[in-house]
Amino acid sequence: MTPISEPRDPDFRTRVTASFARQSFMATLGASLQLVEPGEVHIALPFAPHLSQQHGYLHAEATTAIADTASGYAALTLTPADAEVLSVEFKINLLLPASAPRFLARGRVIRPGRRLSVCLAEVVALHGAEEEVIASMLSTISIRPG
Amino acid sequence: MTPISEPRDPDFRTRVTASFARQSFMATLGASLQLVEPGEVHIALPFAPHLSQQHGYLHAEATTAIADTASGYAALTLTPADAEVLSVEFKINLLLPASAPRFLARGRVIRPGRRLSVCLAEVVALHGAEEEVIASMLSTISIRPG
Amino acid sequence: MTPISEPRDPDFRTRVTASFARQSFMATLGASLQLVEPGEVHIALPFAPHLSQQHGYLHAEATTAIADTASGYAALTLTPADAEVLSVEFKINLLLPASAPRFLARGRVIRPGRRLSVCLAEVVALHGAEEEVIASMLSTISIRPG
Amino acid sequence: MTPISEPRDPDFRTRVTASFARQSFMATLGASLQLVEPGEVHIALPFAPHLSQQHGYLHAEATTAIADTASGYAALTLTPADAEVLSVEFKINLLLPASAPRFLARGRVIRPGRRLSVCLAEVVALHGAEEEVIASMLSTISIRPG
Repeated sequence: MTPISEPRDPDFRTRVTASFARQSFMATLGASLQLVEPGEVHIALPFAPHLSQQHGYLHAEATTAIADTASGYAALTLTPADAEVLSVEFKINLLLPASAPRFLARGRVIRPGRRLSVCLAEVVALHGAEEEVIASMLSTISIRPG
Repeated sequence: MTPISEPRDPDFRTRVTASFARQSFMATLGASLQLVEPGEVHIALPFAPHLSQQHGYLHAEATTAIADTASGYAALTLTPADAEVLSVEFKINLLLPASAPRFLARGRVIRPGRRLSVCLAEVVALHGAEEEVIASMLSTISIRPG
Repeated sequence: MTPISEPRDPDFRTRVTASFARQSFMATLGASLQLVEPGEVHIALPFAPHLSQQHGYLHAEATTAIADTASGYAALTLTPADAEVLSVEFKINLLLPASAPRFLARGRVIRPGRRLSVCLAEVVALHGAEEEVIASMLSTISIRPG
Repeated sequence: MTPISEPRDPDFRTRVTASFARQSFMATLGASLQLVEPGEVHIALPFAPHLSQQHGYLHAEATTAIADTASGYAALTLTPADAEVLSVEFKINLLLPASAPRFLARGRVIRPGRRLSVCLAEVVALHGAEEEVIASMLSTISIRPG
């Protein structure tokens, strides 16, 4: 993917990685960072029984959590070094039951801004080399000076 | 609150409680059912360190999880006995940082339907007897015959 | 309704009314301001054939237009005198077919902010003295210094 | 764009065109169909003074109207011949002020279903050969047997 914008802080990867490591909730889920590029972040999540809903699939909120977090960090790759990001709001469509050994959320900035960035994310279910889009999210991220 | 509709299954409380107990992810969070009435369900969540985001507040997805789950079960209180509910999509606005010892999500059906129900939920932060609305969610729930 | 906040500009009604009058699109629809209170604005729309969709009902975007406009002006009632408002994003659930001689949108600020306000709106179909909620909207409004 | 699904009714273009022609509101706006392919529909809208908001730009609801209509008809290209489509809900992010002589909405089905289809749409502002994305929409469309 062509970067949609140049990063303003060359150390954006360090910043994103350090912030992700402070999110206890991501450790609770078992999620990990897979890619940190300007305007784009991927987060992987293996299925685990403690993440299931009443039918044994991945809970919609685990899907939502990796989509929103990938979006927020995608926005963070493009901010100045001392800025923070905060989700103002998001909307997610859950397209298919989340039944797979592994999931990947891809968050991308579609409109970078000084105060607000808008992101589009998808979550795919990975069955070996095959992937299937199971969720689509559109979100608004607030950029706060640090 | 006046019920917005009559339940079609007199055992709706048993159904909601049993389904909630099968959600491992709710146990992972530490969430519990507080109220199950026709068209309305409340879910409580005490703050805990394993639920935090990078600044130590409750992670947005923990807020989202109890709002969406309260909405889905609010819809389930009004379905026939053998039906299932599934979130089609939702949108949440995160209004304030989630900093409190305890949170409560209140989900309500604003439009019950045979195939789709629409719900409105709020999440409040509880500081003793004081409460503050920290999130608002609007969602669409699909009703599937069992 | 109890005002959720005090207006910072005592002339907020004049400001809202003047801005509404500059919206040619509201005149194209035939919409009119019905109430302008701190944090709450109502807009009425009589049904007319030029607003219909393919089945003869009010077009979803006419419903959307009065809900979003009522929300934006509800936010404007609480801003400083020289500020402008702009919809960042909104989500609407269309609950019932819009079939009535007259419609009313009620927009309310649920979270006033210096940079962003969050609003909740409903649109009701008016059949004489009876009303029926046909749409629910949750939106984010940006406040810009004038 | 590769069609995401095969149309079930070979006369889908005739159906979409006839339904669009019955929408008085599209004529009120001055919108026209530009492309009708399986799973994808484009609608064009020239700027006109009767569509403006208070600062003279295209009103957000005119942007919204062509995005939602393109999405609904994108869903209709993939339904059986006697089915109808209805927007259940949508969310739109308004990314930039809508200032251009001409606009184009592109609606695409990202998940076709028997009862519900999910669409993603963008609206671009056209300045001669240049285009700029000004809005992004994610929507849920209900498919009803005719």
